Amino acid sequence: MTRTPENLTTSTVEAWGAVRAHRPLVQCLTNTVVTNFTANVLLALGATPAMVDLPGEAGWFAQVASGVLINLGTPTQEQRSAMREAAAAAADAGTPWVLDPVAIGALPVRTALAKELTALHPTIVRGNASEIIALDGAGVGGRGVDATDSVEEAVAAAVRIARRGGGVVAVSGPTDVVTDGVETVRLGNGDTLLTRVTGGGCALGAVMAAFAGEEDPFTASVAAITVYNVAAEIAAQSAAGPGSFAVAFIDALAGLDAATLRRRAVIS
Amino acid sequence: MTRTPENLTTSTVEAWGAVRAHRPLVQCLTNTVVTNFTANVLLALGATPAMVDLPGEAGWFAQVASGVLINLGTPTQEQRSAMREAAAAAADAGTPWVLDPVAIGALPVRTALAKELTALHPTIVRGNASEIIALDGAGVGGRGVDATDSVEEAVAAAVRIARRGGGVVAVSGPTDVVTDGVETVRLGNGDTLLTRVTGGGCALGAVMAAFAGEEDPFTASVAAITVYNVAAEIAAQSAAGPGSFAVAFIDALAGLDAATLRRRAVIS
Amino acid sequence: MTRTPENLTTSTVEAWGAVRAHRPLVQCLTNTVVTNFTANVLLALGATPAMVDLPGEAGWFAQVASGVLINLGTPTQEQRSAMREAAAAAADAGTPWVLDPVAIGALPVRTALAKELTALHPTIVRGNASEIIALDGAGVGGRGVDATDSVEEAVAAAVRIARRGGGVVAVSGPTDVVTDGVETVRLGNGDTLLTRVTGGGCALGAVMAAFAGEEDPFTASVAAITVYNVAAEIAAQSAAGPGSFAVAFIDALAGLDAATLRRRAVIS
Repeated sequence: MTRTPENLTTSTVEAWGAVRAHRPLVQCLTNTVVTNFTANVLLALGATPAMVDLPGEAGWFAQVASGVLINLGTPTQEQRSAMREAAAAAADAGTPWVLDPVAIGALPVRTALAKELTALHPTIVRGNASEIIALDGAGVGGRGVDATDSVEEAVAAAVRIARRGGGVVAVSGPTDVVTDGVETVRLGNGDTLLTRVTGGGCALGAVMAAFAGEEDPFTASVAAITVYNVAAEIAAQSAAGPGSFAVAFIDALAGLDAATLRRRAVIS
Repeated sequence: MTRTPENLTTSTVEAWGAVRAHRPLVQCLTNTVVTNFTANVLLALGATPAMVDLPGEAGWFAQVASGVLINLGTPTQEQRSAMREAAAAAADAGTPWVLDPVAIGALPVRTALAKELTALHPTIVRGNASEIIALDGAGVGGRGVDATDSVEEAVAAAVRIARRGGGVVAVSGPTDVVTDGVETVRLGNGDTLLTRVTGGGCALGAVMAAFAGEEDPFTASVAAITVYNVAAEIAAQSAAGPGSFAVAFIDALAGLDAATLRRRAVIS
Repeated sequence: MTRTPENLTTSTVEAWGAVRAHRPLVQCLTNTVVTNFTANVLLALGATPAMVDLPGEAGWFAQVASGVLINLGTPTQEQRSAMREAAAAAADAGTPWVLDPVAIGALPVRTALAKELTALHPTIVRGNASEIIALDGAGVGGRGVDATDSVEEAVAAAVRIARRGGGVVAVSGPTDVVTDGVETVRLGNGDTLLTRVTGGGCALGAVMAAFAGEEDPFTASVAAITVYNVAAEIAAQSAAGPGSFAVAFIDALAGLDAATLRRRAVIS
């Protein structure tokens, strides 16, 4: 099926219904700043969070989970071992997994780990423009991070990562971009308040892992981003600031319905 | 004194008053997902949280705390050492302690730890039906986890754990059950929104540790569950979803009064 | 310039404007209970949080950050290494850093670490009365913690710490006190609800690190405490309890304006 905005919108609504119906088990190996928010976002979505990130448990769990998130925000030594274990087990078992290379570029521990994990072929990579450009550089050896990276430069980097076998790549920003190296779509939903809440991007990675258990990685990425950003738009309508926005966002994600999602989705 | 629903209700109100008056110091060795929510729940209850979970400090603190919570949600190697230290010191000092065997059954690290800690005779064990059945199996060697475990099967497991010296056992579910192996009570308060907020069960374990410093383990368990679930019912009345419910729950716990607690308590 | 209440108020408003304009990068090595709240507080303030607390990364980052917070709430072995690395690098690079000696006194691991870090001359030390008195004792060898410590005894301890080269010292309490060992000011803003939210004090340490990148340590401390406590007063007006207060506090910090800050500031 050709991917048109129309049928991607339909797929998004169907994928959301599938997540609601199946309550996919999402394993998160993520940073200490956002674990609570991430788990609450998954519960509000209708998925089942499980923060199993111990060596000796993470690999076993990655075989039974519907999807796995590996987020490099605060990767302690023990969590790094668990991440390697989970990524390898997910790859073996065919469990889709999402890599979120938080703040890579100049920070050496996570940058090396991102390179290592990328070699295991994540199903989806999610990051902001700087992270995606840094990941592209780490792959070929040398390009640094630039806080002023344009989205278009990041899109070129995303396409390169995808073509080298790095899975579907999603770049978060004012407009979100999803590419598999061949096709590239732009997603227009969202609200800037999402950037004022810590974990706004990190929790999206977990939502992508939830959808990846229900759909192909490209459709899953489009659907996850659109559902997430539509909920943000609804929440922003009643928010008095980032505190009340975060609360309303959880409520909006839990209260979403198919008609609203279809009506609000902006995919091009 | 015979435990009738009437005098357990009276004891619940009195125990709640004692917590408010004494502000018991509750040491929590708990998972990274719920630390913040747990601390805020304890503060709203009127207790004093202290997340002291380092080897070299945890044992000392368990001797001076009013109650200790050991929750196996994300037990890193360092935290596991601290948990052993705290459980042993609590047992030595006579400090009541609560074991929450999160997600035990198939996950090997935490299941082995739960077995080891159970041998130190926790004052109270709290878990959902699957966890209690798994803990019963771990004690005798072999029974696995089943996500479809009925509450009644869990009650039988809870009675066995209690009779083997595993303390008072509380099973969380649509109806909560507390048993000391001889007497068993069923508690009817609560709201399903509590299952949509991460840490809804984990924070209850901390509240049980707070009450255990004020009352015998059986009464403390009944009182903690009833107070917690009455606050959930009050919060659900004004919540628009799980996000606003979590906020209203903290407010309701902080704003609770004895008359409301007595009027709403459902103990049978 | 002499520090009068009038010109400290003016400096506070200007420092707040500078934080808003420059969005300082604040590195936090802090405890697992409050990371999420701390990051959201920094975002609401207008600063940029970065929870970089790994050995091998923390020192590098401390050289590029505008300010660093080292909070001893749950210092794992790995985080303790990162804290030493960050403090040394901050000292070398001239990056201002804030030490928050959480719960020191009787707990041996953190008390020894606080003593070691104090020897590296933190730019600012922030604590409650007991912590400041304990830190003073640790410096000269012997004085213990007393939960009934008066603010005035803590002020004397704060002056001694500052004179021994421990930087500017801030004592949190019903009235906040800031001293550099020569001048001492008292700050009258705030609301008791702030003590009912976990991380109320810890997140203030991060806000002080944000201001320390914009102003001298004394002015930065006064400005940070005043901004923080004015936001608490505004939040308290609409809060129904500690849960809704925490949400409203983030909104109030994000929505603050210079005229309100100037009108409400109580500096003496």
